[in-house]
Amino acid sequence: MNLVDSIRTIPDYPKPGILFRDITTLLGAPRAFRRAVDELVQPWAGSKIDKVAGIEARGFIVGGAVAHQLSAGFVPIRKTGKLPHETISVTYALEYGTDAIEVHRDAIAPGEQVILVDDLVATGGTAAAAVELIRSLGGTVVAACFIIDLPDLGGADKLRALDVPVRTLVSFEGH
Amino acid sequence: MNLVDSIRTIPDYPKPGILFRDITTLLGAPRAFRRAVDELVQPWAGSKIDKVAGIEARGFIVGGAVAHQLSAGFVPIRKTGKLPHETISVTYALEYGTDAIEVHRDAIAPGEQVILVDDLVATGGTAAAAVELIRSLGGTVVAACFIIDLPDLGGADKLRALDVPVRTLVSFEGH
Repeated sequence: MNLVDSIRTIPDYPKPGILFRDITTLLGAPRAFRRAVDELVQPWAGSKIDKVAGIEARGFIVGGAVAHQLSAGFVPIRKTGKLPHETISVTYALEYGTDAIEVHRDAIAPGEQVILVDDLVATGGTAAAAVELIRSLGGTVVAACFIIDLPDLGGADKLRALDVPVRTLVSFEGH
Repeated sequence: MNLVDSIRTIPDYPKPGILFRDITTLLGAPRAFRRAVDELVQPWAGSKIDKVAGIEARGFIVGGAVAHQLSAGFVPIRKTGKLPHETISVTYALEYGTDAIEVHRDAIAPGEQVILVDDLVATGGTAAAAVELIRSLGGTVVAACFIIDLPDLGGADKLRALDVPVRTLVSFEGH
């Protein structure tokens, strides 16, 4: 059972020329999913991690499992307007225009150790915004963990430039 | 540590007169989250469960953790237009109008044992549609599991009428 082989590639999705890496086939394969979750946070298995922050929506699946594995709390980072209590938000640039994500203001306490999780890192724009949110609340970003890396888009390097340790399991070049 | 006390109630959200049950405070509390996940599927801890189907978006968090706990695969059930491969969809009635959810056609194989998971059951409309999707693919719905039940809205009864065993952990009456 190989993690790379459990990821389905869909050509020309969502638009012509894009090779979409579909992680649902990995999630649906019991041993691949379990192995991906356990390997992703293996370096922190013995550490005190207070919170796992997952980015909507696929980051909720991986992050929920990672939080369970580490016996940590889970913090949802969502598109604006979807969290019911007081939030802080960060706006970030897209290829065309901007987007914003937010987190509950009381979701992370100062000094808490936080691991950020998403299924995939591409340009790293959303993840960098999530790092800003966690740090705004006084949390320490222990690491950012992604099952898939698209290194040609530079997201992992962008996060490392923010002094965030990055861990990924599968890399697809030539994106 | 009490599961009920870890759930925050927000009055008049999303509109006046509604008491919104905010599960993010439970998810963020490490012991409450772990206990909720483990208790939710305790009856099936020794059984062969092939897939855990989670409903977008909060059902992804709980379902991801449940799938990890049971060493099962995870199947995302999403709003239409968000899954990249071939899907089947079901349309269901809302208070005003309709909505639709879908699943990848190859996400569940005939004969597979599936547990459906969401954070909360209210009217049960989305969950009943999810049951229809799972059964359309030949899967057996072993149970539908929700952390929160709003019994006055009848969702759990609606699912039981479809011969789906229902498990919930916390009940809020007088909704």
